[in-house]
Amino acid sequence: MQKIKSGIKGLDDLLGDGIPKGKCILLVGGPGSGKTIFAIQFLVEGAKFDEAGLYISLDEKPDEVKEEMMSFGWDLESLEREGKLFFIDATPLRKADRSEKNIPIKTGVLDLKIPEVTLHSIIDTATELVSEEKIKRIAVDPITALILRYDVPSERRMAVLGFFDALSATGCTSIITSELRATQLNRDIQPEEFLAQGVIVLHTINHEGTIIKAIQIEKMRGIKHDVQLRPYVINNKGIEVFPKDRTF
Amino acid sequence: MQKIKSGIKGLDDLLGDGIPKGKCILLVGGPGSGKTIFAIQFLVEGAKFDEAGLYISLDEKPDEVKEEMMSFGWDLESLEREGKLFFIDATPLRKADRSEKNIPIKTGVLDLKIPEVTLHSIIDTATELVSEEKIKRIAVDPITALILRYDVPSERRMAVLGFFDALSATGCTSIITSELRATQLNRDIQPEEFLAQGVIVLHTINHEGTIIKAIQIEKMRGIKHDVQLRPYVINNKGIEVFPKDRTF
Amino acid sequence: MQKIKSGIKGLDDLLGDGIPKGKCILLVGGPGSGKTIFAIQFLVEGAKFDEAGLYISLDEKPDEVKEEMMSFGWDLESLEREGKLFFIDATPLRKADRSEKNIPIKTGVLDLKIPEVTLHSIIDTATELVSEEKIKRIAVDPITALILRYDVPSERRMAVLGFFDALSATGCTSIITSELRATQLNRDIQPEEFLAQGVIVLHTINHEGTIIKAIQIEKMRGIKHDVQLRPYVINNKGIEVFPKDRTF
Amino acid sequence: MQKIKSGIKGLDDLLGDGIPKGKCILLVGGPGSGKTIFAIQFLVEGAKFDEAGLYISLDEKPDEVKEEMMSFGWDLESLEREGKLFFIDATPLRKADRSEKNIPIKTGVLDLKIPEVTLHSIIDTATELVSEEKIKRIAVDPITALILRYDVPSERRMAVLGFFDALSATGCTSIITSELRATQLNRDIQPEEFLAQGVIVLHTINHEGTIIKAIQIEKMRGIKHDVQLRPYVINNKGIEVFPKDRTF
Amino acid sequence: MQKIKSGIKGLDDLLGDGIPKGKCILLVGGPGSGKTIFAIQFLVEGAKFDEAGLYISLDEKPDEVKEEMMSFGWDLESLEREGKLFFIDATPLRKADRSEKNIPIKTGVLDLKIPEVTLHSIIDTATELVSEEKIKRIAVDPITALILRYDVPSERRMAVLGFFDALSATGCTSIITSELRATQLNRDIQPEEFLAQGVIVLHTINHEGTIIKAIQIEKMRGIKHDVQLRPYVINNKGIEVFPKDRTF
Amino acid sequence: MQKIKSGIKGLDDLLGDGIPKGKCILLVGGPGSGKTIFAIQFLVEGAKFDEAGLYISLDEKPDEVKEEMMSFGWDLESLEREGKLFFIDATPLRKADRSEKNIPIKTGVLDLKIPEVTLHSIIDTATELVSEEKIKRIAVDPITALILRYDVPSERRMAVLGFFDALSATGCTSIITSELRATQLNRDIQPEEFLAQGVIVLHTINHEGTIIKAIQIEKMRGIKHDVQLRPYVINNKGIEVFPKDRTF
Repeated sequence: MQKIKSGIKGLDDLLGDGIPKGKCILLVGGPGSGKTIFAIQFLVEGAKFDEAGLYISLDEKPDEVKEEMMSFGWDLESLEREGKLFFIDATPLRKADRSEKNIPIKTGVLDLKIPEVTLHSIIDTATELVSEEKIKRIAVDPITALILRYDVPSERRMAVLGFFDALSATGCTSIITSELRATQLNRDIQPEEFLAQGVIVLHTINHEGTIIKAIQIEKMRGIKHDVQLRPYVINNKGIEVFPKDRTF
Repeated sequence: MQKIKSGIKGLDDLLGDGIPKGKCILLVGGPGSGKTIFAIQFLVEGAKFDEAGLYISLDEKPDEVKEEMMSFGWDLESLEREGKLFFIDATPLRKADRSEKNIPIKTGVLDLKIPEVTLHSIIDTATELVSEEKIKRIAVDPITALILRYDVPSERRMAVLGFFDALSATGCTSIITSELRATQLNRDIQPEEFLAQGVIVLHTINHEGTIIKAIQIEKMRGIKHDVQLRPYVINNKGIEVFPKDRTF
Repeated sequence: MQKIKSGIKGLDDLLGDGIPKGKCILLVGGPGSGKTIFAIQFLVEGAKFDEAGLYISLDEKPDEVKEEMMSFGWDLESLEREGKLFFIDATPLRKADRSEKNIPIKTGVLDLKIPEVTLHSIIDTATELVSEEKIKRIAVDPITALILRYDVPSERRMAVLGFFDALSATGCTSIITSELRATQLNRDIQPEEFLAQGVIVLHTINHEGTIIKAIQIEKMRGIKHDVQLRPYVINNKGIEVFPKDRTF
Repeated sequence: MQKIKSGIKGLDDLLGDGIPKGKCILLVGGPGSGKTIFAIQFLVEGAKFDEAGLYISLDEKPDEVKEEMMSFGWDLESLEREGKLFFIDATPLRKADRSEKNIPIKTGVLDLKIPEVTLHSIIDTATELVSEEKIKRIAVDPITALILRYDVPSERRMAVLGFFDALSATGCTSIITSELRATQLNRDIQPEEFLAQGVIVLHTINHEGTIIKAIQIEKMRGIKHDVQLRPYVINNKGIEVFPKDRTF
Repeated sequence: MQKIKSGIKGLDDLLGDGIPKGKCILLVGGPGSGKTIFAIQFLVEGAKFDEAGLYISLDEKPDEVKEEMMSFGWDLESLEREGKLFFIDATPLRKADRSEKNIPIKTGVLDLKIPEVTLHSIIDTATELVSEEKIKRIAVDPITALILRYDVPSERRMAVLGFFDALSATGCTSIITSELRATQLNRDIQPEEFLAQGVIVLHTINHEGTIIKAIQIEKMRGIKHDVQLRPYVINNKGIEVFPKDRTF
Repeated sequence: MQKIKSGIKGLDDLLGDGIPKGKCILLVGGPGSGKTIFAIQFLVEGAKFDEAGLYISLDEKPDEVKEEMMSFGWDLESLEREGKLFFIDATPLRKADRSEKNIPIKTGVLDLKIPEVTLHSIIDTATELVSEEKIKRIAVDPITALILRYDVPSERRMAVLGFFDALSATGCTSIITSELRATQLNRDIQPEEFLAQGVIVLHTINHEGTIIKAIQIEKMRGIKHDVQLRPYVINNKGIEVFPKDRTF
């Protein structure tokens, strides 16, 4: 199985050599755990090796993401101009609508009548872009908005599998972020974790009053990997994992 | 990313230098944790630097808020007269109705027939006021009443995102308070915490029979920040955070 | 902010000087925690200073309450005769019906066809009585029966807010009791606790096999107050709080 | 407040002197905790002082109860013959039907078409019997079957209150048993515990692998009482409480 | 109260002398706890004393049960030939149907159209067999399939009571197995445990990483019994209880 | 009872000698626990002894499984060519459809209109294949997708029992994988665990910050077996169990 560099310092050591090429990796984490940072760092790393990346933004506007990522020294707009990074703004409010100041609120989101972004439309757009622009890495951030509307468990399962299949079909390696609702290690596993080819969890644990950030490779099909919790920090270069340290 | 002073003593140290300008910060806390005090302190601080503030009151009447804040030496009525502080009374009972003594109860709240305060109407009023009065800071206290009526998770998500977008569109920096229902560190994360650009949590923890008040910057997009629990007190000058202390 | 004596020995020390005048204080406690004793003690204290009190009884018949309170040396019937204490019997079975022996059961409660006691009717009666009798203190014991029928969260919220508003509108200081369903410190916060101007919790904790009774001022808007758990006992003079002691 | 002897050795010490006369006491306990033994022991004690007792059996047939109680040396049939003890068989299968061997199963219980035993019919029968036979003590064992059919919380509350009222109206002192579903001290309080005039809990606790039986007077309106957990045993004379011992 | 030997080595010591004759005993346990072994051992013991037994199999085919029980040296087929043991195959797929290879799946279980096994039909068959064959002991393994279809709590309660009554009416002593869903001592009690005349629990506990099997007589009406957790093993003679040992 | 080698190093020691021939064994585990590895290892072991195997893939495409298993040195394609291993691709997207690139997404999974894979169709195909190809071992990986659509508990129970019966009817020994949603030892037991003839659990436990992988034979009808948690690893030869070690 071929591997590619994740771009996350220390993480590839846990995976032997990198993450499996062409697979869908689920990245599960709480608020402030660094899911978006991880996703962008993964794309920026690709850009270094001329592997173009695609960031599909579901909750946050691309402009906001670009601004926030400046603090890590990542100039996403330059990468975009160089054709090494592409953005799909899949937030529910489409760009066209935002030009008229009050409309988004009045006739848009709050009345819930705008044409919905669907799994289908995202896949179509992404597939087209990948084939035209020779994209190699994709980040979907987060999957939550897409799957919330499937509330029958069996349908949700099929939709998620279909989405993963479609991403795999593009030939790209994908990072898909997902929300972690628990603040402790003992938690309920989400169905998506069983369906993804790999699962990385970003824990924010309250341990006797101290907040500990720990990364765990919960699953990585076909790759021998470290299974322990390992500390990580978010510093001014992004996420850094300490692959040989214990958390507590 | 530009920052502004929060006005909460000790808090800005945790954030480097202040809170990110123009963003929506969610402030999560239990009853008695000081959410309203935090929100008003944030606006009073702005007034010192001639940044006008807007307080949107959802549960409590502005007059009650003003009275309660006297104990911290904040004369909100004077600030109001000077045009440095504005109030929107978005409690379900409108002012006009309250003049007739028994009516609010008889035909109002309890029959649930009064015209509802909506996300839409609040945004419209706030947007207009911000543009007319050069307001720079907004506090929405609390968001609970607004989102309770969206009980389908995907709709709630869209409504919250739309509300945050609309606040951001005003150009102001906003504090939005939210109710924390748990009395322990291990809790379920609320969906809003994933959607906000920053989340500050005011914990009231029962630790071996002692009540501890601790503040945690759970998330602050684009800003390097302290992640630990830090003690805080409510004293006669408002909220004070001890940025270098441990809670236990 | 003006304060009045609560009448609970030791409690006013935790509050500085007394409870805030004209506010609605929620008193949360389990079975046997002394909610009714607290409420009556608050009214008896008022009577000493010629502040007439009104007890609105929702679950228990006033006659039963009067009998039970004898053990604390409180002669409520005398106070009633002197015009210092008034009772509204808001139990579902009205007095008129109880004269016919079997009727309450046959056509009454169990068939659920009797005219319901509503928030509206209670407020109307109380408002009228307050204005005629110069009442200064109100106890509502408990609020549970009144709010159980609002099972939509947003309606429940509005009904509770409206009820608190109406009580405040009378100018009286009110104690409203509420049921605490948990037997441990870590519990879910009830929505009412966010809406009240003050919340006092009467805990009955199982601590390593020992039952501990502890009082906690969870919230008191506009008043600096002690936040710790403090032991209390129910002795032959009512409730006594030990404001300087630790519980464990 | 007048008191009567409970008949449970050691229990009256916890209550000062006995249980309050004319009140409804809820007895909450798990399977095997001795609820039925407690209830019968209470009635047998009354019989010693010529206070006739009435046992209303909801789940178990009176004949089975009589047989089981033989092991404590209680000859209930003799007491019945002497007019000191009466039984109402309120199990869903009425006596008349049981004469035909297969019918109860074929057309009865399992098809759920038999005339239901209702709160109403039980109260009517009990009230009549009490007035004719000068009954002073009542045991209802258990209340569960009666209240399960009220699944709307507000209706359940009213039905329980009405049932307690009707029992009080007979002038008798009543023990009403209720099921405890938890096997630990930390549990959710049942609504009935707030509505009863007294609550006694029979705990069966797993403490570090040892099963401990402990009694707790959770509530007893109008009577000063011990609040701690106290050990009890079921021996060949019924239930015996050790009022000065600690459980662990 | 008459007793009979359970056949479980060590168990009768906990019960004084054996289990109560003619009663319904609920046997609650997790997967692998030995419920079926217990039930068969109880019947095999009876066969030794010429008390014929009836095994009503709800989930597993009798042939499978017979095969599995060989490992304990129990030759159930011989007992069957001698008229000392009878089987009712109450699995949803009837014997007649199984002769045609594909039919069970195509038109049977998965389409859920086969005539259902009901409480009623089982009782009828069992009652007839008991009276013809002089059966003294019955095992029903498990009750789960029968009661799952009663999802209204009050109906479930009545169905279970009716089933227990019908079994008691046969004059036999019965063991009814039930599923235990929890893997810890602290669990929710099932309604059936309140309705049975006796309850024996087979615990499989994870204690600090060690799996411990422990038996507990939770309830046994009319019989003084040990209440502690006692270790048991499944060895090549069936279940053996160590009545004087502690579990941990 | 006849046994066969599981192929999992160390596991057969826990089972005496191997797993029971012709039975359905449920394999329960979390994401990354090695369920698929276990299932394939079981089939590869059979192939060594000329027992042909059938892998029924419900979530993952057979090609992906084959690729992932390369890392353990298992050349599944060769085994397939030699007629020792067969695959049924029961993923919701059928092979025929996948030839047209965009169709799976557009008209397929996400619209949920493709002909569903059913328990029935899988059983039919498997039964036919087993009889034609002399297959002796079957793996179904996982059962989750098949049973999610039965949301009425009694129907789910019947469907699972019918599926197990049909697999047993083929004469093969089967491993059926199932998802474990908990990350701690104390968990709710799934209904399937009561219905299977054997249950093996692959635990991934967070023990004081260390991730521990432990296997437990929860149940194995008719076979004396070890009941303790035993450590296992996933190394470059597949799963290896340490049958004499303790986990912690």
